[in-house]
Amino acid sequence: MARRWEHTPEELKNIAIQAGYDIMQERGFQAFSARAVAAKMGYTVGTLYHLFGDLDTFILHVNARTLDEWYEQEAAGIPKRPEQRARYFAQSYLKYARENYNRWNALFEHRLPAGEKIPDWYMPRMMRMFELIGDAMLPHAGGDAKKAERLAKVLWASVHGICTLSLAGKLDQVGAGTPERMIDDLIALAVGGKK
Amino acid sequence: MARRWEHTPEELKNIAIQAGYDIMQERGFQAFSARAVAAKMGYTVGTLYHLFGDLDTFILHVNARTLDEWYEQEAAGIPKRPEQRARYFAQSYLKYARENYNRWNALFEHRLPAGEKIPDWYMPRMMRMFELIGDAMLPHAGGDAKKAERLAKVLWASVHGICTLSLAGKLDQVGAGTPERMIDDLIALAVGGKK
Repeated sequence: MARRWEHTPEELKNIAIQAGYDIMQERGFQAFSARAVAAKMGYTVGTLYHLFGDLDTFILHVNARTLDEWYEQEAAGIPKRPEQRARYFAQSYLKYARENYNRWNALFEHRLPAGEKIPDWYMPRMMRMFELIGDAMLPHAGGDAKKAERLAKVLWASVHGICTLSLAGKLDQVGAGTPERMIDDLIALAVGGKK
Repeated sequence: MARRWEHTPEELKNIAIQAGYDIMQERGFQAFSARAVAAKMGYTVGTLYHLFGDLDTFILHVNARTLDEWYEQEAAGIPKRPEQRARYFAQSYLKYARENYNRWNALFEHRLPAGEKIPDWYMPRMMRMFELIGDAMLPHAGGDAKKAERLAKVLWASVHGICTLSLAGKLDQVGAGTPERMIDDLIALAVGGKK
């Protein structure tokens, strides 16, 4: 078992976030607990609360790590040809959601207590993802950055719907075809091209 | 308390489905229970199982009543002008989800045990909704019924995504604007017109 005095608070936080990240992936949001994370770290639950204040703040840190990892992965695969980018982001959203379901789902399942605002340090982790997609939509929005950003969010929410329904088995039930094809159809609507 | 011998089995089923419909609206899917429904009916849980076989089948009947009511509502409000219909269906999806959240959510939360198929009597209740939307998309799919149906399902899943993210408060967090405007933007992509 690791000893608290062997690490600086920053190191400890990092160890805790990594343990939370692993537990979230293994168990999913509903079964996520401070106790499980503490056990994995070899520390007490008290240490976890001492480091982060409360469970919601800790979950935000775990989710931020997911967002960071996801962003790196998205950014690394951007196609050279701009006209392929909208499709790339849409299809890779589905791929990421499938391959990292529990951590991806936690981003949407977690809600802060009523009245609490998302902290300032968390916001850029979400927003830079939209900037990537907004850039991809720029050529399809007549170069209007505001319009491109708006379009990016509409496409995100739409692809999100296709993903959640697909992962819940609801697309098969209504014979909607594969989510990949639905996403291709959606992107064709947004960027022109085949319908 | 009602007496079982006062009703035919068909009448009893109907009473049970109505009680289930009310309990679902009041409590939502996660807190839905056979016990609560039986108590509302003034019968035992045994009667409920005797009538429907198992809880999943009973929930399908409750969800079918939701679908029927929803369909009637959608069908009654179809705009006379065909070019307004795609927008109408998309916006009224959001309206229905908001106003009947618990019953609407139950349609998507309920999953049959692995390996069990949706019964034949249930399928048309879902599919006729897509037929309505498919008809609305026909003018935007060059009169190709297959293409219109496919487009209808893509739009459904997309609007569904906007609805679920909106109802979970996730659109506000990223400054995505109102779900109504996002739906309008989406429909504009699908049927042409302003982007």
